[in-house]
Amino acid sequence: MATGMLLVCGLALFLTIKSNLLHSQQFTISFQRPSDCSVEQFYDISSQSCVKCGPNQSTSATGLSCECVTGFRVLATNGASITCQQCPLEKPAVTEDGYGCILCPGSLTEQGTCQCPSGSILVERDVQGNPLEEARCEVCNGAEPALSAPNSYGDRCQRCQASLINTSQSCMCGSNILAGGMCFPPNNLPTAVNPNVNYAELSLPVQSAWFSTNLYSSAAACLVYTNLTACQALGNMCVMNMHSFSSVANDACGLYNTIFRATAALGSTQDISYWRANLPWLYYGDQPGLANRVLQTEPLPTGFSFKGRNRNTDINLVAAVYNTRGDFLQWEKVGGNNLQLCPDTARRQEAAYTFGTAYQETCVLSVADLLRVYAEPLFYDVFVDLSRGEDRRLLPLPTRNLNQEYNRKFINQGNLNDWYLSRRVLLVDTLSGREKSLGSLPKVIRIASSIRIGFQLVPGTQKGQVFPPLLSVTYSDVLITAPNTQTVSVSFAVYYEMDQTEAHMKTDIALGVLGGVSVLYSLVKTASWKRRIGSPLIDIETVLKFLLFYAGDLANVFFFITVGTGLYWLIFYKAQHFVSVLLPLPGLQEERFIAYVGCAFALKTVQFLHKLIQQLSVDIFFIDWERPRGKANKTIQGNGNGEAKHSPSPVSIWRTYFVANEWNEIQTIRKISPTFQIMAVLFLLEVVGFSSLALRDPWSDLQRPPQSYAPPYSLTLRYGLAATLWLCIGLLQIIFFTAFHERFVEDKICQFVDLCSISNISVLLLSHRCFGYYIHGRSVHGHADTNMEEMNINLKREAESLCGQRGLLPNTDTQTFQISITSRLRLQYDRILEPLSRRNGPSRLVDAASGHPFDQSTKAYHTMNRFLGSVIDHAHRDMEYVVRDKLFFERVIGMEFLEPMDKSIFYNGYAATFPPSCANITSFSILVPIVYMYIQYQAKVWSCSCHNMDLVFYQIGISSVYHPYLVTTQLIASNAIRRK
Amino acid sequence: MATGMLLVCGLALFLTIKSNLLHSQQFTISFQRPSDCSVEQFYDISSQSCVKCGPNQSTSATGLSCECVTGFRVLATNGASITCQQCPLEKPAVTEDGYGCILCPGSLTEQGTCQCPSGSILVERDVQGNPLEEARCEVCNGAEPALSAPNSYGDRCQRCQASLINTSQSCMCGSNILAGGMCFPPNNLPTAVNPNVNYAELSLPVQSAWFSTNLYSSAAACLVYTNLTACQALGNMCVMNMHSFSSVANDACGLYNTIFRATAALGSTQDISYWRANLPWLYYGDQPGLANRVLQTEPLPTGFSFKGRNRNTDINLVAAVYNTRGDFLQWEKVGGNNLQLCPDTARRQEAAYTFGTAYQETCVLSVADLLRVYAEPLFYDVFVDLSRGEDRRLLPLPTRNLNQEYNRKFINQGNLNDWYLSRRVLLVDTLSGREKSLGSLPKVIRIASSIRIGFQLVPGTQKGQVFPPLLSVTYSDVLITAPNTQTVSVSFAVYYEMDQTEAHMKTDIALGVLGGVSVLYSLVKTASWKRRIGSPLIDIETVLKFLLFYAGDLANVFFFITVGTGLYWLIFYKAQHFVSVLLPLPGLQEERFIAYVGCAFALKTVQFLHKLIQQLSVDIFFIDWERPRGKANKTIQGNGNGEAKHSPSPVSIWRTYFVANEWNEIQTIRKISPTFQIMAVLFLLEVVGFSSLALRDPWSDLQRPPQSYAPPYSLTLRYGLAATLWLCIGLLQIIFFTAFHERFVEDKICQFVDLCSISNISVLLLSHRCFGYYIHGRSVHGHADTNMEEMNINLKREAESLCGQRGLLPNTDTQTFQISITSRLRLQYDRILEPLSRRNGPSRLVDAASGHPFDQSTKAYHTMNRFLGSVIDHAHRDMEYVVRDKLFFERVIGMEFLEPMDKSIFYNGYAATFPPSCANITSFSILVPIVYMYIQYQAKVWSCSCHNMDLVFYQIGISSVYHPYLVTTQLIASNAIRRK
Repeated sequence: MATGMLLVCGLALFLTIKSNLLHSQQFTISFQRPSDCSVEQFYDISSQSCVKCGPNQSTSATGLSCECVTGFRVLATNGASITCQQCPLEKPAVTEDGYGCILCPGSLTEQGTCQCPSGSILVERDVQGNPLEEARCEVCNGAEPALSAPNSYGDRCQRCQASLINTSQSCMCGSNILAGGMCFPPNNLPTAVNPNVNYAELSLPVQSAWFSTNLYSSAAACLVYTNLTACQALGNMCVMNMHSFSSVANDACGLYNTIFRATAALGSTQDISYWRANLPWLYYGDQPGLANRVLQTEPLPTGFSFKGRNRNTDINLVAAVYNTRGDFLQWEKVGGNNLQLCPDTARRQEAAYTFGTAYQETCVLSVADLLRVYAEPLFYDVFVDLSRGEDRRLLPLPTRNLNQEYNRKFINQGNLNDWYLSRRVLLVDTLSGREKSLGSLPKVIRIASSIRIGFQLVPGTQKGQVFPPLLSVTYSDVLITAPNTQTVSVSFAVYYEMDQTEAHMKTDIALGVLGGVSVLYSLVKTASWKRRIGSPLIDIETVLKFLLFYAGDLANVFFFITVGTGLYWLIFYKAQHFVSVLLPLPGLQEERFIAYVGCAFALKTVQFLHKLIQQLSVDIFFIDWERPRGKANKTIQGNGNGEAKHSPSPVSIWRTYFVANEWNEIQTIRKISPTFQIMAVLFLLEVVGFSSLALRDPWSDLQRPPQSYAPPYSLTLRYGLAATLWLCIGLLQIIFFTAFHERFVEDKICQFVDLCSISNISVLLLSHRCFGYYIHGRSVHGHADTNMEEMNINLKREAESLCGQRGLLPNTDTQTFQISITSRLRLQYDRILEPLSRRNGPSRLVDAASGHPFDQSTKAYHTMNRFLGSVIDHAHRDMEYVVRDKLFFERVIGMEFLEPMDKSIFYNGYAATFPPSCANITSFSILVPIVYMYIQYQAKVWSCSCHNMDLVFYQIGISSVYHPYLVTTQLIASNAIRRK
Repeated sequence: MATGMLLVCGLALFLTIKSNLLHSQQFTISFQRPSDCSVEQFYDISSQSCVKCGPNQSTSATGLSCECVTGFRVLATNGASITCQQCPLEKPAVTEDGYGCILCPGSLTEQGTCQCPSGSILVERDVQGNPLEEARCEVCNGAEPALSAPNSYGDRCQRCQASLINTSQSCMCGSNILAGGMCFPPNNLPTAVNPNVNYAELSLPVQSAWFSTNLYSSAAACLVYTNLTACQALGNMCVMNMHSFSSVANDACGLYNTIFRATAALGSTQDISYWRANLPWLYYGDQPGLANRVLQTEPLPTGFSFKGRNRNTDINLVAAVYNTRGDFLQWEKVGGNNLQLCPDTARRQEAAYTFGTAYQETCVLSVADLLRVYAEPLFYDVFVDLSRGEDRRLLPLPTRNLNQEYNRKFINQGNLNDWYLSRRVLLVDTLSGREKSLGSLPKVIRIASSIRIGFQLVPGTQKGQVFPPLLSVTYSDVLITAPNTQTVSVSFAVYYEMDQTEAHMKTDIALGVLGGVSVLYSLVKTASWKRRIGSPLIDIETVLKFLLFYAGDLANVFFFITVGTGLYWLIFYKAQHFVSVLLPLPGLQEERFIAYVGCAFALKTVQFLHKLIQQLSVDIFFIDWERPRGKANKTIQGNGNGEAKHSPSPVSIWRTYFVANEWNEIQTIRKISPTFQIMAVLFLLEVVGFSSLALRDPWSDLQRPPQSYAPPYSLTLRYGLAATLWLCIGLLQIIFFTAFHERFVEDKICQFVDLCSISNISVLLLSHRCFGYYIHGRSVHGHADTNMEEMNINLKREAESLCGQRGLLPNTDTQTFQISITSRLRLQYDRILEPLSRRNGPSRLVDAASGHPFDQSTKAYHTMNRFLGSVIDHAHRDMEYVVRDKLFFERVIGMEFLEPMDKSIFYNGYAATFPPSCANITSFSILVPIVYMYIQYQAKVWSCSCHNMDLVFYQIGISSVYHPYLVTTQLIASNAIRRK
C-alpha cells in the first residue's frame, strides 16, 4: 500500500518536473500590456508583466509606476518603489511635489492637494525653499504696473498676455472681444464666423473644432495686430476649405478676402500684385484668361537639354513649408517623398524630377497609416528654383486646385480660360474634419489623391524652353467609418507635352501626297489588269478592281506614315541634345495615330483577301514533250489470256507527277523564315532589351538596373521600334537569302527550271485571261523517260557541252518568260477545257453516274498537250508568237505597252526570279504581342490553295475521284550542270 | 527739340512699363531663406523675404522676429512689431520677461539680465506679481527639512533630486559618487567604465558621448536603486555594443553581467532562468548546444495550414519597444515597416508575414535619410503572439546576432552548436557613434543591414507544425564621411525550410532502383544489338556499346527523377492543406537537383551523338520490280546517222527518283510541330501565367495583381512546371497527330508505302549488319511505268477490288517488315557493294582519273536489283526466308529471340508505324529561356544526314560526280484505294 503510494507520488513528481521542464523549454510567457493591469498594479517594464503596487498605492497615469493614493505622501523612494504614509489630520493636504503634508487655506482638490481660487496662486514654500506650515493663496496683481496673472502651473504670478495689455491696459479684456485667448478691440470682422468645412465630394459640411476655435481669432489677430503667423493660419484654413468662395463672407476664404481688401493700403510685396504684404499669397487674379497668360506667355529662362556639355535635366522645385498654426517651418527641396505619398526608394522617387521622364506612381494607402503619420497637415508653397550661381530666383508654381469652388461651381474642371489659379497645397488634412475636439477621431479626412506636374514646351523651340509648369491637385474626401480597413488610392505624375498641331499638319501633308500617288499607281495597275484580261471595256468590275488595288496601296501609305511617325519620334526624341520635341501624350494626342494604324490594318486585310482570290484563279498546265519510243508488250490483265499485242510503248506519267509535285512544293517558299523572324524580333526586344527604347524617358540605354524607375511605355515609340526592327530583320534575311543562300546553298526556283529541262516538261501558267508565265522545259536530249544509264550519259553530255542549249530560242539559255497571249489563243484554250469545266463542281458527287470522266479528261489532256506543244513549236500559223525583251519602263510600272493583237508576245524573264510578278506578293503576319502587330514584309512567296491544285490536276488528267492527290515535289538540280 | 525729348521720354517710359509688365508677368521673386538675413533683418514669413528690424533691434534666435538689443526693454508690441526703449542708468538690467527695467544685486549677463550665483534664484517680482525695484538673489535651503535647490530656470527653489536625499539626506552629494546628475553611495561597480563602442567591422573603437554620460550612472542606478528604466538603458547600451563580451568587465555588457550576477537573489521572472527580474532579458544561457535545443525541440502549439476551413497562414509577431533612455514605449504589431527598412506599400510589406511566402526585399538607403529619420535608436523585443481567444501567450523569438563577439570571436557565424542566442534588436543606431557631444554628427552609424526570419518545419509533421522561428540580424558599420552621397544596402527576408534528408533519401532510392533497371535494359539492348549485327563475340566494341546504351538510359533516369522531383514539389507544396512540406531553399538544398539536371543533360548529349552516328550508318536500297515492256526505237544521237535499232525499251528511272525523293522527305517528319510546341509553352507560361505557379508562395493563382508582392522563383518549381507543360503539350500533340491528323488528314508513312506499291518499287533498309526493314512495294498490276490512262485504269481496278492484294504473302495486306537476315545474305550483299565501297571516299576527288565510275555503279545497281529481287521471290535456295509474327515479349524488349541461322526471318510490321524501332528516336530540344531548358520529347522522327543520302544515291546509281543530288519527294496516296 505504502509502496503504491510512493510510486504514485514519484510518478506525479516526475510528471510535474517533466511538465515544468517542457514549459521552461518552450519559454512562453503570458502576454500583458499596460492596459491589462488593474488599478492596484503597475506594468513592470523589465518583466513585461503587471506587478502589484505597495500598500496605499495606485497606478500612475502612465501605468508604468505606482503613486500614493489621495491623502498619502511619499515617505521614501529608492527608484523602483516608494513607501507611502498617510498625512496627519492637522496637515491633511499633500504638497505639489508629493513628499510633504501641509495645511490648506481653502479646500482640497480631488488629488488631495490644496486648491486656490482662479486668479490666485498656491504658495507652499517660502522664497528660500523652506516649506510653510500652512499653504497660502495669493492673488496676482493685474493692474499697472504689475500687469500680472497666474502662470499655467498656478504657482507664480507673471506678466499677462500682450493683447490684453494692448486692448485694456490691464490683465482683463473687459468689454472687448475675447477669442482664442486673445483680446481684440471692436473691428470690422463679423463676429459670427462660419466654422464649417464643406466636403463637396460628400456634400457634407462639418463643423470643425479647429475652425471654431481659431478662425475668428486668427482673422482678428491678422487684421488688428498684423500678426503674421495668424495671417498664415487664416490662409491655411482657406486652403483647407479648398480655396472656395461663396457669397457669404464669413468663412475662411471670405475672411481672407475681407482682410485682403481691407489691407490694400499695405500694398503688395515682391512686385506681385496678388500678394499682399502681410498675407500669404493664395490666389492669382480673377481676370478672364489670366490662367492662359500665366501659363503660356513667358518661358522659363533656362532651357533643358538631354545630352552634351550643357546637359540639364534637373527640375529644381523648392517649397516653403508652414504648419497649420501658421508657423513657417523651413524651405524644403521638393523630392524624396514630400509631394509623393506613395512609399518607394529615394532613387525611384528622384526620377520624377528628371526632365523628360514621364513619371507615374499610384498606390493604395491605408487610412489608419495616414491618420498616424499625417496627424498635422503641412502646407506647401511650391516654387521652381531658377538659381544660377549667386542669382537666386524663384518662380512660383501656378496651382490648379480641381476641387476649388466659385459660387458652388467647380471652375477649374472646365475650360482653361475659366481657370482660377491659386497657390499653396496641402497633402493630407486630418485636422479640419475633427468635429467635437481636436483630440477626437476626424469625421472626414481629405487627401491630395492626384498630384500632377505638367510641363509644356514652347512651340518651335530649339533650346528646350518650357512654359512655367502647372501643378494640378485633386483632393478626395474620405468619410471615416473604419480607419483600419479603409484605404484610399493616391497618385503622383509628372508629364511633358508639346503642341502637336505641327506634327499633325505634316502627317496630313504626307497623307495627301502619298494618297494622290497611290491613286495614280492604282490606276496604272487597273489599266495593266485590263490589258492582261484582254478586255477594253470600263465596267463595274473595273471600278471594283480599281478600288481593290487602291485599298492595297492606301494600306501601304498608312503603314509607311505610321512607321515613319514612330521612327520620327524614336529618333528625334531619343537623340535630341536640346529638347525640341516631346512625345505625344497617351490618349487624345495619340488618337489619330491609332486611327491610322487601324486603317492600315483594315485596308491590308482587304488587299490580302483580294490577293488570295487572285491566286486561287490561276490556270496551270504541264506540257509533256516526250514522244513514245517504240512498241511495248501490253498485256491485258483483265481477261487473263496472256495474249500479247503490239502497241506504241506508253509515255510514263511519272515525270509529270514529279514536276507537279515539285511545283506544289515551291509554292510556299519564302525569302524569310517566319519562325526566325519572330524569334529574332522577340530576342532583340526582350532579351537584348531594345524594348527599353520605347520607355517615355530621354535615355537610350538598353538595359536598366532593376532598382531604377521604369517609366510607362509610349505606344508610338513601341510601334515605331517594333516595326523598324521587324523590317530591318526582314531586310537582312532577304539580303542573306538572295545574296548567299540562293547563290551558294540552293535556289529552289532555279532548281525547278532545271528539273523541267531534265524531265522534258514545260509549264504554262495563266494568271490572267491573256497573261501569264511560261517555263520552257524541253529536254535537249529529245528523250527523258529513260533508264539510269541514259540519264547519266545525257547529264554527262550536257556537262561536257556536247548538246544544244536549253533556251526556247536556239542558242539561248532563256527558259522563263512572261507571256501576253492573243484572245484567239485563249479562246482555243478555253474550248479545249470546256467539257471539263462544265462538270467541274458536281463531278465529285455524281461521278459514278456520269459516263466516263476519265476518258473525257484524258482526251482533254492529250488535246491540250498537243495543242500547246504545237503552239510553242510554231506549228499553228494563226497563233504565232514573238520573243522580245521587256522595256525597262514596262518592268518598272508592271504593265505591257504592246497589246497582243495578232501574235502573242513572250517576254524574256529572269530565271532567278521566276515568276517575276508573283515574286512580289505581300504577305501578312500577325505577331504574338498585340502591340507589335501589323507589320508587313515583302518576300518571294507563292501560296496557292488546294482548290487551285484541284484545277491543276484536272488539267494533267487525274480525275477528281482520286482526290486528294496532291503531289508535291522538290528537286535540287545540279549546279554543276548549269555551270558545266 | 522739345518734341524729340518728349518722344525719347515717352519711349523710355513705355519701355519701363513694358519691362515692369513683363517682370510682373513672369512672377519671379528672389530666393531668400532665414539664414540669408543679416543681423539687423528678420525673415518675414508672409513675403518670404528679409525685412529690416526697427531701431535698437536685432534678429531673434529663430530669425523670424526681432528683439531688443542688450540694455533695451520692449516698450510696446502690436503682434507684428515691437518698440524698444533703453533702460535708465539706475535700472540698467532688463527683466526676464523683457518688458521692464530693474536694478541688479550683482552682475549682468551677456543678455543684459541679472545674474545670480549658482545655488541661488533670481527674484524680480514679489509673490503677488508686483515688480521689485531691485532684484534679489536668494539662496535655496538645501538642509532638512527644506531639501530645496534651484529649478532649471533658476527662478524658484524646489525639492532636490531623490538620489541626493537618499544618499546624503541633503541636497549635496558630498563624498559619494556623483554621476549623470545622480548621487550614488560607494558600490561594487568599477567607477572607471569603458565608454568605447567597438565597431568591429571597421576595427574602430569610438569613445561614445552617450556611453560616457550614461553608462556608469545607468549601471549604478540599476544596481543601487533598482531603477527599471536605468536597467533598460544599460541593456540597450549592451545591445548597441552588439551583445559582445570581452574579458574586461567594465564595458556595457560586462556591467550588465556583473549586475546580473549580483542580483541573483532577485531571482528570475516569467519562469525563464535567463531573465532576471529587474533586468532586460538579453542572453540565452551559454551551455553548449543550447541554441540547438531552443530551436529544434518544441514546436509552436498551433500548426499552419494553407487551405480549407482551418486556414492559418498568419504569422503574428509583436514587439515591445524601448527607447535608448530605457523608457518602455509600447507594444507594436510587427509588420508595416518596423522591421522592414525598405520603403514599400503596406500591402507588399504585409506579405512577409504570410506563412509559406518566401519574402525577400533589398534596397539601397541614403545615409542622410537614415540620420534624419532614425535620430534616436529604438529597441525591439520580438515575440511570436500565440494568443487564442482569452489565452494570451507570447513566445520570445530567439535572436542570432551575427556581429556578436565572445572574446573577440564572432561565435554566431559558425556552427549551430556554438551559437549564443540573444534577445533585443535595434535597427539603426545613429547615437552611439557620436563622439564629442550628443548634438554632433556621428562618426559611425550602425544599421541592421540584413534581417532574416527563418521557420523550420518539424520533420514528418502532417499538421504544419514549426519550431520557434529564428531571427538573424547582421549589422553594418558605416563610417560617416559624406552623408549626403553615402548609401547603405539593407535587406529583409523571411524564409521557410525543412529537413531535406528524407527527400534526398527517397531520391537516392529511386536513383538506385531505376539505375539498376537501366543497367538491365542496357544489357538487353546490347544483346539485341549483338544479335542484329550477327556477332557472338564480346569484345571491346561491345563494352563501349553497352556504355553508350547505358548513358542514354541513365540520362532518362536522371531526367525522370528531376521531373518527378519538380512535379512532386509543385503538387505537394501548392496543393497541401496542412503544411507538411516546404520547398528546398536555393543554394545548398538545391545543389543536388542541379547536379542531376546537369548529369541528365550531359548523358543525353552522349546518347544524342550516338544516335546520330547510328543513323548515319544505315544502308538503303530501292528494288525496282519493273521489267522492260518491249522494243523501243532507240536513236543514237551522238553519231547523228538516224539509224534505228531495236533494243529492249528502257525502264524509266523516274519512279525510283520519285520514291527516293519521297524517302528523303519523310525523314524529317515529327509527330509534333516544334514551333507550335515552343510557342504553346511560352504562351501558357508567360501569357496565361502558369509561371506564377513557380513562385515561392503557397498560392495557385495564375494572374497576380501587379501591386501585390511577387516572391522570388523556385528553381525546382520552374523546372518541374516547364518540363511538365512541355511534356503535356508534346503528348497532346502526339495524340492529336496520331488520333486525328494521321487518320483524317494525312499519314505520310502510310502514303509512302502506298507510293511504293503504285510505283512498283520495294525499299530495303539495313540499320544493322543483319537487321533492318523491308517495304514490299511490288505493284499488283505488274507494270507501273506507264501513261495516265493505264495508271487510272489500274487505280480504278484496285478500287473495285479487281486485282490481288498488295502484301508480300498472297492474300495479305502486310507490306512492312522487320527483317533479320542471315550472315550469308549479308556477305553476298557486301560482295556486290564491294567495288563501290572500295572507292567510296576518294571517288569524288579522283573521279575523272579513275576508269568509268558510271559503269561500275550501274553494274552494281543492276546486280543488286536482280539479286535482292530474286531473294524476295524465293529464287535463291540458300537464301530462303520465312515470314512470322513477332512475339509480344519480343516487341516489348525490342530483341529477337530466334537467330537467323539458315533462313532469314521477316517479321510482320505495322504499316502505320513503319519503321517501328526508328519511330522512337528521342529528339533533343534546347528552349529559348535557359531555365526552361533541357526537356525532351518523344516523336516519330527519322533524321538522316546528307552523308547518309550520299550512300543512298550511290546505291540507286547516281554517281557522286553529280552530288549534291538530293531528291526529296512526298506523295499523298489515295486513302480511297486502300479502303476501296
